Amino acid sequence: MSNNPSFVLRAIENVAYEERPVPNSIADTEVIVAIKKTGICGSDVHYYVHGKIGEFIVKEPMVLGHESAGVITKVGAKVKHVKVGDKVAVEPGSTCRVCSFCKSGKYNLCPDIVFAATPPYDGTLARYYCVLGDLTYPLPEHLTLEDGAMMEPLSVGVHSVSNLGNFKFGQSIAVFGCGPVGLLCMAVAKALGARRIFAADIVPSRLEFAKTYVGAIPYQPLSPSGDESKLQYSKRNADNMKKTLGIDDLGPNAVDLAIDASGAEVSIQTALYIVGTGGTLVQVGMGNPNIQIDLSPLMTKEVAYKGSFRYTHGDYPLAISLVAQGKIDLKPLVTHRYNFNDAIAAFKATRAGKSEDGKDVIKAIISGPDVSPNDM
Amino acid sequence: MSNNPSFVLRAIENVAYEERPVPNSIADTEVIVAIKKTGICGSDVHYYVHGKIGEFIVKEPMVLGHESAGVITKVGAKVKHVKVGDKVAVEPGSTCRVCSFCKSGKYNLCPDIVFAATPPYDGTLARYYCVLGDLTYPLPEHLTLEDGAMMEPLSVGVHSVSNLGNFKFGQSIAVFGCGPVGLLCMAVAKALGARRIFAADIVPSRLEFAKTYVGAIPYQPLSPSGDESKLQYSKRNADNMKKTLGIDDLGPNAVDLAIDASGAEVSIQTALYIVGTGGTLVQVGMGNPNIQIDLSPLMTKEVAYKGSFRYTHGDYPLAISLVAQGKIDLKPLVTHRYNFNDAIAAFKATRAGKSEDGKDVIKAIISGPDVSPNDM
Amino acid sequence: MSNNPSFVLRAIENVAYEERPVPNSIADTEVIVAIKKTGICGSDVHYYVHGKIGEFIVKEPMVLGHESAGVITKVGAKVKHVKVGDKVAVEPGSTCRVCSFCKSGKYNLCPDIVFAATPPYDGTLARYYCVLGDLTYPLPEHLTLEDGAMMEPLSVGVHSVSNLGNFKFGQSIAVFGCGPVGLLCMAVAKALGARRIFAADIVPSRLEFAKTYVGAIPYQPLSPSGDESKLQYSKRNADNMKKTLGIDDLGPNAVDLAIDASGAEVSIQTALYIVGTGGTLVQVGMGNPNIQIDLSPLMTKEVAYKGSFRYTHGDYPLAISLVAQGKIDLKPLVTHRYNFNDAIAAFKATRAGKSEDGKDVIKAIISGPDVSPNDM
Amino acid sequence: MSNNPSFVLRAIENVAYEERPVPNSIADTEVIVAIKKTGICGSDVHYYVHGKIGEFIVKEPMVLGHESAGVITKVGAKVKHVKVGDKVAVEPGSTCRVCSFCKSGKYNLCPDIVFAATPPYDGTLARYYCVLGDLTYPLPEHLTLEDGAMMEPLSVGVHSVSNLGNFKFGQSIAVFGCGPVGLLCMAVAKALGARRIFAADIVPSRLEFAKTYVGAIPYQPLSPSGDESKLQYSKRNADNMKKTLGIDDLGPNAVDLAIDASGAEVSIQTALYIVGTGGTLVQVGMGNPNIQIDLSPLMTKEVAYKGSFRYTHGDYPLAISLVAQGKIDLKPLVTHRYNFNDAIAAFKATRAGKSEDGKDVIKAIISGPDVSPNDM
Repeated sequence: MSNNPSFVLRAIENVAYEERPVPNSIADTEVIVAIKKTGICGSDVHYYVHGKIGEFIVKEPMVLGHESAGVITKVGAKVKHVKVGDKVAVEPGSTCRVCSFCKSGKYNLCPDIVFAATPPYDGTLARYYCVLGDLTYPLPEHLTLEDGAMMEPLSVGVHSVSNLGNFKFGQSIAVFGCGPVGLLCMAVAKALGARRIFAADIVPSRLEFAKTYVGAIPYQPLSPSGDESKLQYSKRNADNMKKTLGIDDLGPNAVDLAIDASGAEVSIQTALYIVGTGGTLVQVGMGNPNIQIDLSPLMTKEVAYKGSFRYTHGDYPLAISLVAQGKIDLKPLVTHRYNFNDAIAAFKATRAGKSEDGKDVIKAIISGPDVSPNDM
Repeated sequence: MSNNPSFVLRAIENVAYEERPVPNSIADTEVIVAIKKTGICGSDVHYYVHGKIGEFIVKEPMVLGHESAGVITKVGAKVKHVKVGDKVAVEPGSTCRVCSFCKSGKYNLCPDIVFAATPPYDGTLARYYCVLGDLTYPLPEHLTLEDGAMMEPLSVGVHSVSNLGNFKFGQSIAVFGCGPVGLLCMAVAKALGARRIFAADIVPSRLEFAKTYVGAIPYQPLSPSGDESKLQYSKRNADNMKKTLGIDDLGPNAVDLAIDASGAEVSIQTALYIVGTGGTLVQVGMGNPNIQIDLSPLMTKEVAYKGSFRYTHGDYPLAISLVAQGKIDLKPLVTHRYNFNDAIAAFKATRAGKSEDGKDVIKAIISGPDVSPNDM
Repeated sequence: MSNNPSFVLRAIENVAYEERPVPNSIADTEVIVAIKKTGICGSDVHYYVHGKIGEFIVKEPMVLGHESAGVITKVGAKVKHVKVGDKVAVEPGSTCRVCSFCKSGKYNLCPDIVFAATPPYDGTLARYYCVLGDLTYPLPEHLTLEDGAMMEPLSVGVHSVSNLGNFKFGQSIAVFGCGPVGLLCMAVAKALGARRIFAADIVPSRLEFAKTYVGAIPYQPLSPSGDESKLQYSKRNADNMKKTLGIDDLGPNAVDLAIDASGAEVSIQTALYIVGTGGTLVQVGMGNPNIQIDLSPLMTKEVAYKGSFRYTHGDYPLAISLVAQGKIDLKPLVTHRYNFNDAIAAFKATRAGKSEDGKDVIKAIISGPDVSPNDM
Repeated sequence: MSNNPSFVLRAIENVAYEERPVPNSIADTEVIVAIKKTGICGSDVHYYVHGKIGEFIVKEPMVLGHESAGVITKVGAKVKHVKVGDKVAVEPGSTCRVCSFCKSGKYNLCPDIVFAATPPYDGTLARYYCVLGDLTYPLPEHLTLEDGAMMEPLSVGVHSVSNLGNFKFGQSIAVFGCGPVGLLCMAVAKALGARRIFAADIVPSRLEFAKTYVGAIPYQPLSPSGDESKLQYSKRNADNMKKTLGIDDLGPNAVDLAIDASGAEVSIQTALYIVGTGGTLVQVGMGNPNIQIDLSPLMTKEVAYKGSFRYTHGDYPLAISLVAQGKIDLKPLVTHRYNFNDAIAAFKATRAGKSEDGKDVIKAIISGPDVSPNDM
């Protein structure tokens, strides 16, 4: 192997290509992946803009990127399920394998997780990435490397909808926020047999996309009025949503699972009013973390309000399976493609929500140094 | 049967004894219970003081009381498990038996529940109470009628700790609020094999009681300072609680289950900071329902925050089983006993938190019209 | 309402049309259904031929039939979800609603179940059938009454595959026996996202049907040789099946769920050898109940071997939902249609496995007295 | 460290002390334990007598023993929870940590498990044993090293009763076979709050022990008569057991969980007739694996018949927790103690079921080379 150019965040809004050492001697349990496609996530942009997320602070230069797929170039002696040349999706979090979470199917909660592009650990926007072999998933022939990169955000949706939300055939879901994660939650719900999918967002074009993409029933939130509290607004908004869309608290027209993929306080409040009796609300979006909620619906409906953190055992395999069986089409979500040398443009477009030509960004994908954006 | 004197709430702080019709013709599935012991609950007092709880408003005179035990006096043709003369605990919520909740073990969520002393339905503070037969549970010989009345709040604890909290042998629990429900949550956790029980309350005497009653490790919350927000205070308080009591976020010293039995905003906030990674927070206390929470611990620890509403399938039987096997002693909780004719005194003492002689009230029990308070 | 002609089993192979009283006064919780379509099940035929199944013995004349759909003609005062004229599928087992099974979602195990055409209870092959209202399920507009009748055997498949088998998207299933129940198990697995469906049967035409109907991978069992025990044969057969079809004990090529819908000893033995490590074997077929099994695979693979009995809470709704969403097509399974007056012919064809014209029977449906077989 | 004497099985009934290399360089994730106490298990004896168990065949000399506790003498760099000098219980199966079973809490099913004294892997009857660090569990101060060695068979009981059997407070259990594993299953059930514990065994002294040890209700099986099949006998025996002990098929007097710890065909058959409707039968004993069963009770009661294989995630911690909290006393089970140099005597006594002085063996423990049997 030759050199290893990498896209590095040096400080806030300060990025550069650096030459990083090529991983050479790998452990028996590891592989090296030549990265071909990397999607840009809100968290990548957040580090780029703010230099930190919560208590994770970029103190040393850090390679960005964690939504990747590529081709295996080296295989540790104990890794049996892949060989050099295989196309793989890369799960970007290596965990300890000895703590209780790692052993019980909740390795996303491992305190010693090494997660790509979460400081102080380097990400995947480089020519080569070294990772534990069992975190690479061979892609079926008919899936593209872009599909492979998209497995990361899709796994977030799988985790929220299937794993935490325990979504079942014939149930109904309401998703607040129609960004990539919200859309992928809807796609998972549809693939698992959703009866009705409700989508809420303040941006009409996003609602329109959700409608076209998964047949979601769109809901445009009411405008707040000046003389009401946020909770009062949210209650009014929820009542309107129920009435407009024929949502009941129980029975076949109830919302079994609500997902907040927006992080917005009023969305969360509305979701708690909307979700059906005995239902679940999964929090996967993050904005200002300090929010007010009304305990009355939580208690009288016995709602379970669950935080969702990344993905864990079983999520990547289900994501790949859903796409491989043709139940989810990831292609419509990839709206922008960039050369490795233009990585900064992908960040800027994702940050702005649209590219310079005015086109809305859902997902921007950066090709590896040796691949063309046209080669999906 | 003869007359049926009943303790009726006519309006706010306006109660009276009224003669109600003796239930005569009962359905095949019903029984009549001669009520012997009735505990007074915070909700009874709340109706007495405010005339409503949330959207449940007392519009017509309503018999109070719902924590009761008594003796069977009449048995419907289809009821086989009890006979006239049996001592029984009475579960006070009759449900429809045809909705999905009733059929799937979550009948507390039945929209058509008829719950004693929740308007517009009469309660149990009368000579006779008519109820569906399968809601009466025969008491083992060595249990008293007072034990029987206490099964109602104990079932609330069972529901929160065992059913929703899924508490397992060897786990640890933190309970915020040391009133009757909080104490009973601790008692259930102890009976099920708790490793450590943490109890938090601002009243030192309540903490002392928790320590004596179940061996709880007491925590006296810090005092808030003027220049911090509630969330800032709660974070500081939680950090102090962790440090003082040797609580970690994970591993054997983590809190697997937190219960808020206080309804206080800062308790809930603290509980969310205290509960371990992958843990559960059950909300069983109710105060001002509008509270602020910090989503960061909810999400990064993947906490499930669950509302708890009354009790449901399996809770009464487990409550009785725990007491029958001697794992829980209910007697220390009954601090006050009243004649039927002195019911108002029980309400006043419960409202004040102490009786006229200055003794703290945990649970006050009113005897039926034909029983002496000394006859437990 | 007028008269109520009924198809009655008087003794072994002795059936007749009798006039039964029209149900008049119904309970508040009941409805009357004018039966339009009734499928014939192996158990109906078994009563017809043997007069009993296990300990259920026909001692008094009994109306046959339990797979029915029809139109509501009378509605009890408390029944709100249907009205006169609604097309409904009829779930044929009324239960007590007070035992622990009825309350916890396992009402199929209620000891007091009144099940249509299980002695001593009359079945549905009549003009009118009276049943608890919540056991009637309105059919969506685009479903036929034949679809409605087929919901009964489909619910058996749902119960085995989804409820007991806990089948998940992307898993693989092996079904032994390609009769109606086996085929419906495959259809459920396919609808829920099966990766591979293996079908085993000794009749080639049935295998061919399974292949066409759900894309099953067919397996024709080996012929037994004279000098081996049944278990030896089954081990050899299973090894051959694994090798031929690329089945492993674990990993993506494992069989997650095996279903025996044949009742044949060697099928069950083979299924236990075939099912993957940590997998489940559901027993839904019944033949000679005394069978030999090899405990070694049960133990070293930690297989759960589960008996399946009818269906329970949630099964009918999921069955209807799967068909309503177009994931299962029931029409290809209805191979024979009869007038009410020709009911005996339906029994004879089902018993023989083919009609007089030599056509294989999968499911024969008898129309109600007022409907034509051509009107589906 | 110095030399490493080991007790080696060279061939059938051919054992010897051999000097094995002292493990020197250990992996970062490993520890070395100086073995102090080792219990002898039926499987050890089976290898000694037969040279194999099923497909596991002793082809090379193999160190025996796998129920061990000892003291840490060396700690790999990544192992943080123990230090040199700690007393630990040793879990004897190292697994791959990358397969689906290892990641999802079912590592006992890992195909690459390295299990002590299961050929071709050496066991623990030596001065030193090298094992993955997270498989060593520090013993609380008040527990002995003998307690530590007993954690292995106790974990088998925990796995069967709590993990697979999902045993809950207030349920009833029936255990067939009163050897060490059967007794430990009863002990676990008692510790978790069993309402009634039924014990069946053909040896009266064992029944007596079960009665004394955990308050089990003893059942002495009927004698078979010459003119009945095994299934007929078992049905008669089960009916007698039900009648004699007041066991019903459902309700509070039902058996929720049955455990066969005998491996005897008639015990398994009886257990299937005894277990309550909706109940579970766990198979943990192994005899002749080819057994006949009656499918009727399996199906009409919807029994789950589960194979149990060793123990897995959570079982060791729960075992230690149960003993540490004083809910299980392991000392009465240790009936025989031997010097390292007398290991052969422990095998002979366990094989015979009694020592030369005629005392019944429940569990024989061999001390490490540097410990006295009197030092528990």
